[in-house]
Amino acid sequence: MTTLVIGANGQIGRQFCELAKAAGEPIKAMVRSEEQRAWFEERGIDTVVADLEGELRHAFEGCDQVLFTAGSGPHTGPDKTLMIDLYGAIRAADLASELGLSRYLMVSAMRAEDPLSAPEKLRPYTAAKFAADAHLRHSRVPHVILKPGRLTDEAATRKVATSLEETGGENTVSRANVAHALLHLVQARTLVDCEFDLLDGEREIAEALS
Amino acid sequence: MTTLVIGANGQIGRQFCELAKAAGEPIKAMVRSEEQRAWFEERGIDTVVADLEGELRHAFEGCDQVLFTAGSGPHTGPDKTLMIDLYGAIRAADLASELGLSRYLMVSAMRAEDPLSAPEKLRPYTAAKFAADAHLRHSRVPHVILKPGRLTDEAATRKVATSLEETGGENTVSRANVAHALLHLVQARTLVDCEFDLLDGEREIAEALS
Repeated sequence: MTTLVIGANGQIGRQFCELAKAAGEPIKAMVRSEEQRAWFEERGIDTVVADLEGELRHAFEGCDQVLFTAGSGPHTGPDKTLMIDLYGAIRAADLASELGLSRYLMVSAMRAEDPLSAPEKLRPYTAAKFAADAHLRHSRVPHVILKPGRLTDEAATRKVATSLEETGGENTVSRANVAHALLHLVQARTLVDCEFDLLDGEREIAEALS
Repeated sequence: MTTLVIGANGQIGRQFCELAKAAGEPIKAMVRSEEQRAWFEERGIDTVVADLEGELRHAFEGCDQVLFTAGSGPHTGPDKTLMIDLYGAIRAADLASELGLSRYLMVSAMRAEDPLSAPEKLRPYTAAKFAADAHLRHSRVPHVILKPGRLTDEAATRKVATSLEETGGENTVSRANVAHALLHLVQARTLVDCEFDLLDGEREIAEALS
């Protein structure tokens, strides 16, 4: 019961991997290069070198679910948005479906269900997330889609909300809280085919994401 | 039996609209602004002003099929690729499905079924076409996907090929030949759920695309 972590070397990815390791949750961190491996090996976290824009299939070996947290948000440049957030997510979903994985956990973005409602600068990124999410829903693999609000570097509170109504319009969530939410989702294996917005809030993660 | 032409003001779109008008094929040219209307009105072609990134639904009124030829290839910049080639195509497919249109004709691109096989510079664009095509296939609307090779401004020969084997590796096709191929497809109303590569070649269009 091992989770392949795609995007392990990202800001959310690293925090998630540390939490999973501490919790004894089996993961395999997918990294792009041998150089990226060291950080994970120092922490006793299994790794596999693979490429979202190249050889990918071997990374899935021995894994029964996948967590997609690659792509670093709307500011990496739209070429990378197309190759990683869109096409990388699609390739991973098609492989997960073909290989019969039990679940695909997607880190998407708030408003991804309606990109034209996002601020104009964020629309191209949000459109990529819309299309990747839609492809996942059309695939045969059971899935959970997590849609964080605007990401911050605040410390973990482990208290969250799942709607703007609940927060009075406050639209931020810390990467640390996202990482905790992902650990919950990875372990809540009976949770499938559902979607959650995620914001900093007042509720326990396990209660909010159920 | 009217075809909504999305991307009518593009290089292929304008040529297609002139051919359709000459053939007496009923079309409605969708344009972005009142200014773009004049060219079509001078030629007696019906138009509708709508926005692939905004109000779109009204454009479908009175149309029973849609031709998507918006987006001017891989050189418009990846932000526009995300908003037009990807998300615009997806919005149009979702509307066509919801409104029960009889067909959706998509102008895609050669290699769109395998973006990583495209030259590196073209991969982000090709990935957008992959995702838009996949979304269309997953939709409930009957469709035809046309995948031209590298576009040129040569004159129409009305002779085409549908594989690189057939052309000895020559990968170009004139926009004029694409426009003729689209007129054939628009009129071949029993043709559904199929896909063709398109190159300049030696065969009659009606024979090659059947």
